[in-house]
Amino acid sequence: MNVFNEALLMNAQHHMAGAHPPPGHVTLVGAGPGDAELLTVKAARALQSASLVLVDQLVSPEVLALLPAHAECIAVGKSASRHTLSQEEIIQLMLRLARRGRSLLRLKGGDGYIFGRGGEEAQALAEAGIPFSVIPGLSAAQGAAASVGIPLTHRDHAGTLIFTTGHLRDEHPKNGQLDLDWPTLARPRQTVVVYMGVGTLALICERLMDHGLPAGTPAAVVENATRVNERCIAGTVASLPALALVHGVQAPALIIIGEVVALRAVLAQAQPAVLNLAAH
Amino acid sequence: MNVFNEALLMNAQHHMAGAHPPPGHVTLVGAGPGDAELLTVKAARALQSASLVLVDQLVSPEVLALLPAHAECIAVGKSASRHTLSQEEIIQLMLRLARRGRSLLRLKGGDGYIFGRGGEEAQALAEAGIPFSVIPGLSAAQGAAASVGIPLTHRDHAGTLIFTTGHLRDEHPKNGQLDLDWPTLARPRQTVVVYMGVGTLALICERLMDHGLPAGTPAAVVENATRVNERCIAGTVASLPALALVHGVQAPALIIIGEVVALRAVLAQAQPAVLNLAAH
Repeated sequence: MNVFNEALLMNAQHHMAGAHPPPGHVTLVGAGPGDAELLTVKAARALQSASLVLVDQLVSPEVLALLPAHAECIAVGKSASRHTLSQEEIIQLMLRLARRGRSLLRLKGGDGYIFGRGGEEAQALAEAGIPFSVIPGLSAAQGAAASVGIPLTHRDHAGTLIFTTGHLRDEHPKNGQLDLDWPTLARPRQTVVVYMGVGTLALICERLMDHGLPAGTPAAVVENATRVNERCIAGTVASLPALALVHGVQAPALIIIGEVVALRAVLAQAQPAVLNLAAH
Repeated sequence: MNVFNEALLMNAQHHMAGAHPPPGHVTLVGAGPGDAELLTVKAARALQSASLVLVDQLVSPEVLALLPAHAECIAVGKSASRHTLSQEEIIQLMLRLARRGRSLLRLKGGDGYIFGRGGEEAQALAEAGIPFSVIPGLSAAQGAAASVGIPLTHRDHAGTLIFTTGHLRDEHPKNGQLDLDWPTLARPRQTVVVYMGVGTLALICERLMDHGLPAGTPAAVVENATRVNERCIAGTVASLPALALVHGVQAPALIIIGEVVALRAVLAQAQPAVLNLAAH
């Protein structure tokens, strides 16, 4: 498998110079949280028979290793801070390739329909009349929950589960512009998972406390969920920003807030694989 | 594979009469939404090597077909309306089997840590000192989203995704006792997924409108997501209860509410496999 951007891109564009065959089929595939064993059976099969792949940076090397040696693999982005191509450029490239008859696999970390911008890509494909199918993937929160020992719901602690993001529409929001629904996120008896929130963790915790979430509410940040370098740092909404700073937590990571986080202290005992890098 | 309750249960209990070997290992496995291809690779492998399985009724026959012919399979419940064993009895049976040295696979529909009561079971195992591991599964909402063409988030329409249930702590809630956080669920620019809400659909839609959700907000109910008998009925929060009644929607089904539901009209065009049983 080759991951090399510029040359493959030009090569792909070169292929576009011909006549108009029927459009290729695009398969939007959720690559899950990282561990290749957490791909769905359907996704693993799609990867193993792929010939052309547009891949995000968040997809793990373990997953990419399933691609056949001859597969053309175009890295189109995107990490939290660095975009190889903009979302619009990714969509245009995908449309151009498919219109020229190339079937391709669009591979995204997690689940393409949960903060994966798969909806926008599916919409562009549908509007362009390009046939596509969607294979869902485990979202990072699910991988993290199972791996570090934090059930996302629990009858005694959380009847509602909220997924949100640390940045919304803007590609590079400044801290002060974080536009989340704080009163909703600060409510009791629920679990809140914040994707892409490491850069704004301190602000998030501060705002939640401003809106009434008790300072002692358990909270954790999970870095590289389900990967070999996974880390879970647990504390409270008051202590977590400092803990994350001390431990040098980097993206990709997600934040889990709610009473369920406290269950980890119990569950981790019986799961020896679970890392315990920070005191609870 | 045998699915036969009483005799196997007695057989299992008979095995418990011996001495105290080291406890067995329990693997909590999320079976996903129904399509066996949507199991994770890890879950599929665990199923194929299982010898003793405690299985919920929501697990699809396609998934159960992966179990080896010699596997003992105990159906422990639970459907929305009928419990073979209570949750407490399930936990006690699991603990007794594991304490007698039996390793077993605890198989649940969807993801055990998202409304699967896996948290309670993991907690009981941990407190009893029984080693366990957790394999996450796709939640029904993810299967439904990919299958019927409803992205759960979208930059233009929904920056927050909320999972909740149509019944909370009580096993058989009366309509009037439905204890949801209506102001939170009625907010704009989010997607709300209600699990196990078919029986209370009319009440849910009414309360959401009472709390300010516009009557024209797109809403859908997805029955048997990803299975051969999948159906998606789409309308608005005002029209959906009547549509569901006309079409005779039954559990297992989930409700999706939010602007993203309207994308289905576009996305379904390019996904010929998507059923279109009800007008949008």
